[in-house]
Amino acid sequence: MAETILPTLTVGRYLIDRIAELGVKHVFGIPGDYVLGLYKMLEESPMTLVGTTREDNAGFAADAYARINGLGCVCLTYCVGGLSAANSIAGAFAEKSPVIVLSGSPGVGERAHNPLLHHKVKTFETQFDVFQHLTVASAVLDRPDTAFAEIDRVLDAALRYKRPVYLELPRDQLHSAPDAPHHRRTSVQASDQDALREALDEAEALLTSAKRPVILADVEIHRFHLQDELIELAESAGMPIATTILGKSVVAEAHPLFAGVYEGGMGRPEVTTLVESSDCLLMLGCFLTDINLGVFTAKLDPSRCIDATSEDLRIRRHHYRDVRLDDFIRGLIDRRLTVNRTPIPKRTSPFAEVEIGPGDSPATSSKVFARLNRLLNEAKGATVIADVGDSLFGATDLEMERRTEFLSPAYYTSMGFGVPAALGANMANPASRVLVIVGDGAFQMTGMELSTIARHGFNPIIVILNNHGYTTERFMLEGSFNDVFNWEYHRITDMLGTGLGVEVRTVAELDEGLARAWANTDSFSLLNIHLDPYDHSPALERLAARMGELVRKRG
Amino acid sequence: MAETILPTLTVGRYLIDRIAELGVKHVFGIPGDYVLGLYKMLEESPMTLVGTTREDNAGFAADAYARINGLGCVCLTYCVGGLSAANSIAGAFAEKSPVIVLSGSPGVGERAHNPLLHHKVKTFETQFDVFQHLTVASAVLDRPDTAFAEIDRVLDAALRYKRPVYLELPRDQLHSAPDAPHHRRTSVQASDQDALREALDEAEALLTSAKRPVILADVEIHRFHLQDELIELAESAGMPIATTILGKSVVAEAHPLFAGVYEGGMGRPEVTTLVESSDCLLMLGCFLTDINLGVFTAKLDPSRCIDATSEDLRIRRHHYRDVRLDDFIRGLIDRRLTVNRTPIPKRTSPFAEVEIGPGDSPATSSKVFARLNRLLNEAKGATVIADVGDSLFGATDLEMERRTEFLSPAYYTSMGFGVPAALGANMANPASRVLVIVGDGAFQMTGMELSTIARHGFNPIIVILNNHGYTTERFMLEGSFNDVFNWEYHRITDMLGTGLGVEVRTVAELDEGLARAWANTDSFSLLNIHLDPYDHSPALERLAARMGELVRKRG
Repeated sequence: MAETILPTLTVGRYLIDRIAELGVKHVFGIPGDYVLGLYKMLEESPMTLVGTTREDNAGFAADAYARINGLGCVCLTYCVGGLSAANSIAGAFAEKSPVIVLSGSPGVGERAHNPLLHHKVKTFETQFDVFQHLTVASAVLDRPDTAFAEIDRVLDAALRYKRPVYLELPRDQLHSAPDAPHHRRTSVQASDQDALREALDEAEALLTSAKRPVILADVEIHRFHLQDELIELAESAGMPIATTILGKSVVAEAHPLFAGVYEGGMGRPEVTTLVESSDCLLMLGCFLTDINLGVFTAKLDPSRCIDATSEDLRIRRHHYRDVRLDDFIRGLIDRRLTVNRTPIPKRTSPFAEVEIGPGDSPATSSKVFARLNRLLNEAKGATVIADVGDSLFGATDLEMERRTEFLSPAYYTSMGFGVPAALGANMANPASRVLVIVGDGAFQMTGMELSTIARHGFNPIIVILNNHGYTTERFMLEGSFNDVFNWEYHRITDMLGTGLGVEVRTVAELDEGLARAWANTDSFSLLNIHLDPYDHSPALERLAARMGELVRKRG
Repeated sequence: MAETILPTLTVGRYLIDRIAELGVKHVFGIPGDYVLGLYKMLEESPMTLVGTTREDNAGFAADAYARINGLGCVCLTYCVGGLSAANSIAGAFAEKSPVIVLSGSPGVGERAHNPLLHHKVKTFETQFDVFQHLTVASAVLDRPDTAFAEIDRVLDAALRYKRPVYLELPRDQLHSAPDAPHHRRTSVQASDQDALREALDEAEALLTSAKRPVILADVEIHRFHLQDELIELAESAGMPIATTILGKSVVAEAHPLFAGVYEGGMGRPEVTTLVESSDCLLMLGCFLTDINLGVFTAKLDPSRCIDATSEDLRIRRHHYRDVRLDDFIRGLIDRRLTVNRTPIPKRTSPFAEVEIGPGDSPATSSKVFARLNRLLNEAKGATVIADVGDSLFGATDLEMERRTEFLSPAYYTSMGFGVPAALGANMANPASRVLVIVGDGAFQMTGMELSTIARHGFNPIIVILNNHGYTTERFMLEGSFNDVFNWEYHRITDMLGTGLGVEVRTVAELDEGLARAWANTDSFSLLNIHLDPYDHSPALERLAARMGELVRKRG
C-alpha cells in the first residue's frame, strides 16, 4: 500500500526515521567531519549513538547486535572510517547478519571542483565500489528526488536477505528534500503457492516414508526468528534436531529432542552417525561451510536431503524457486506429519570425563570448559560469545540450556569478534549476563573495546585462554610466527580504571576467579588463564589435524 | 636485457626472491591457515617476519617503513587478514607509499569443489576485487606459467608509481613451477627526450625572467629520493624552498634556503605571501590536497606555476607527457640557471612567543610543542611521527633540523597511523630516536601496537595529547559523540610488563617527563599529557574554523 511522504521531509530525516522504525535503537561508530551533521541528527533522534574506540569494532558490535535484535547499524566517516570496517562487514555478509552501513562523504557540490579532498583514495567512488563487494545492496544518496526510493530499496534488501547494506550520504544532501512526494512501496516476496504446495507434497512423502528422519537446523533459523516454529515442527512430528556450530543455540539444548552439534568427522560420533545415516535429512536454514562440516569430513548424501534456506529449496537434486523458508516450515507443521521415531543418542556430557584434579593442579583447556559449562547450567539466560580458535572449538561442547544465546563467527572465522560483540550483545539485551571466551591473540586485536563496555557500565565476563600463541595455526604448521607476546591481561583494569582482573594458573584460582567474576555485577571481569602453549580442546586436535593436512598438502 | 630463470624455481621462491632483491628486509603481518606455507618460506628467507597485533597496524607499519626504506611489504591471510588492512593500504595509496600486499588464499584446486570455504565473502574474487580499488596493480598468481610475469608486472608498478600493489597466492601454487623458462623484462620508462628538452627550455625561460621565483617541494621528493637533487637545484639557482605539510622535512629546515611550511591561509602569513606572490612557482612533486592547501584557502595561480610530479608535468596551463620528474630536476640543475634572488622571510620561531610559565602552571598544547621543538633541536637524526588531529597541526611548526624524518598521513588523514608507524620506522632505521605525537582518540585505535615495539626492544617516545576527545571534530561541531573515555595511558606499562609511563599535568612534570623519556633508551616511554578539552594549537584553531564552516554550510 502506498504511503505519501510530504515533500518537506529531508533525506537525512527520512533515513533516520526509516532505520528507527525498523527497530534499530543503537548506532555504533566514530564521528568524522564528513559525517558530523548526520551524527548531530542521530544524537537528537530516539536512537542512541554508541562511540567505539575503533570502526572495525563498531562493525563487530553492530553484527552481534543484529544477530540478537534483528537489525544493526554503524555510522562512519568517509574511507578512514568506512574502509576500517571492511573486514567486520565482510564477516556480517558471510554469516547473514544484517548490518546497515551508513557513511558520510564529500558533498556533491564540493566534489566537482576539488579533486583531492582528504580521506579520498582513487576516486570519489572508491568506498562505494569496495562496499558493493561486501553488501547485498548499496546506494549513494546524491539526489533528493531518488534518495527516498533508494533508502527503501536498500533497507528492504537488508531485511529480505539478512545481509549488510551500504548507504552513503554526501554531506550536502543531509538537509536536501525532494520536490515531489515520495510513494513508499514495501515489497514483500510471497511464496509461489503452487510451488510451495508441490514442495510440501514431496517433502511430506519423503519424511513420512523415511525410517530415520532427522532435522539439521542452522543459522537462518536464528536470523529469521524461526526458533518457535522449529520446535513446533519437531515436537509435532517427533523428530530429533541436530544443529551446526554456526547454528548452535538455535534450540535450547536441554530440550528432549535436541540430539547434539553436528560437526562432520570432527564431532561426537553418535551425532555424526545420527545425521549421516538418516535416510531423510531435513536441513533448515543451513550453511554448508567447511568449518560447519568438520572441514569436509561430512558425508551428506544429497539424494537423502531436503535443504531449505531463505534463498533456495532443494529436495534431493532439484530446486524449487520462490518458496519462502518460513512458509515451508509452517506448511510442514500444518501437514501434521506422522513420521517414524528416530532414536536420539543418549546425552553424555562431554565434560563428564574431565578430571578436574586438586586445587593446585594446573588449569587446562578441558577443565576451563568443564567449569564454564557448570557455570552456564546455573545461569539463567546468559549470552555466550566465542572468538575464533580453541575458544570456539571448545565452546561447541558447552550445553546451552535455556536457549542461551550463542554467538560466534563460526563460518567467516575472523579473530577479534568476541569482545566488541559483547558490547553489541549487551546493547541489544542489557539484562543478559555475557560470557566471552577468547584466545590471547584474538584479545590483542580488539580487547581494548572493554573501554566502551566499561563506559556503559556493562558486566561481561571475559575468559582469556592465554597460551601465548595462535594455537590453531600452531597445530597446523609450527613456526615462531605463531608466538604471541605476553600481556598481563588482568592489568587492563589499571589502564581503564575499572573492572575486575584475575590471573589464573591453577584449578583453585580458576574456581575462585569464576566465582568472583560471577558475583561482580558492577563491572567487567577478566580472567587471564595461563595454559600450556600446546594445550587445546579435543575438538581442536581433530580439526587442526585435518586442516594441517590441507596446509601441508596444498601449501 | 632478458634474464633467464631456470624452470625449477617455484612461484613462492621467485616471489620471495624478487621482493628481497628490491630491498625489503622486513615483512609485517599475522599468519593464518591460507598463508602458513608462505610464512614458513618467509621465516626461512633472509627477510624478517614482524608479527603485529592487528593487520591494519601491519599496513601502517609497512607504509612508514616504505616511506623510509623505499618499499614495504605485508603478508596476510585471506579476507580476515587482507580486508582488515583495507584502510591502511588505502592511506598508502593516497599518499604514494609503495606497500606490497601479499595474501594467501584458497588453493585453485579446492575452490572448484568447495563453494563455502571459511573466510570467503561473496565470491572467491572478493578480496581481489576490493584491492583493485586500493592498489595500482594487482594479480592472483593462479597459474605457474603466468605467475612470474605477473609478479614482475606488479612489482614494477609499485616502483614506478610508488603506490601499493596486491599479489594473491592461492595456497596450492606456492610450490608450483612453470614448464618453460621465464624471461624477465624490466621496464624502465625513459623520458621523451624532445619533450624534456622543450619543457626545460620553457621552464628556464620562465624562471630566469621571473622577479620572485620560489620552489614548493612536496611528498614525491621524499618518495623518489630526490632530496639531494632538490638541494643542488635550489643552491645552484639560489631559490628559496617552501614545503607543504605532507612534504615537511624533505629539506633540513635549518638550511638557509628553507622558507617555511606553506599551508594556504592557515599557515604563517609571510610564507603564504612568499608562495602566493611568486611570479614563477616551481612545484616539485606536489599533491594539491585540501589539507595541504589550508582547506582551499590557497591562492595559487596556474598561469604562474610549473607543476612537476611523477605522473605529469604542467607548465602554466599545458601538459607534457613522458617527462620524468627526476630527469626534469636534473635537467634544470644542468642548465645552471641564473635567477633573481627572492628574499626569504626572516625565520621566526613559532615558539618564541610561547610563555612557558612557572613549573606548577598547567601544560598546554603550545607549551608541549615548544618543549618538543627544543628537544628536537638537541637531538641528532630523530624521526617525528604525527598522528592526525592537533598532533599533526601543532607538529607542522616543529623545526626539522638535520633532515629529520617527518612522517604523517597529512593527506589521507587516517587516525591511528602514529604508533604502528613508529614500529615500521624503527624497523627501517633502528638507530633513529622516534618521537610519536598522538591524540587520545587516535591512541585508543592503535596504541596497543606498543606491544610489538616492546617485543623488539625499540625505544620511541610516545607523547599523548590527552584532552579527552576528538578535538578537531569538537571545534567543527560540538556534541557528546566527540568525547573520548579516559584511559590511564601511562599504566600501559603494567599490562605490557615493560616501558616507562609518565603522567603529566604541569610544566614541571612535562620537563621532567621529557628528560626521563629521552634518557630511557632501553624501552618505550609514554607521556600522558592532560590538556584542557578545548586547548589546541593556533594552527588547529584556524583550520577547524575553516572546516567547521564547510560542515555547517554543507551538512
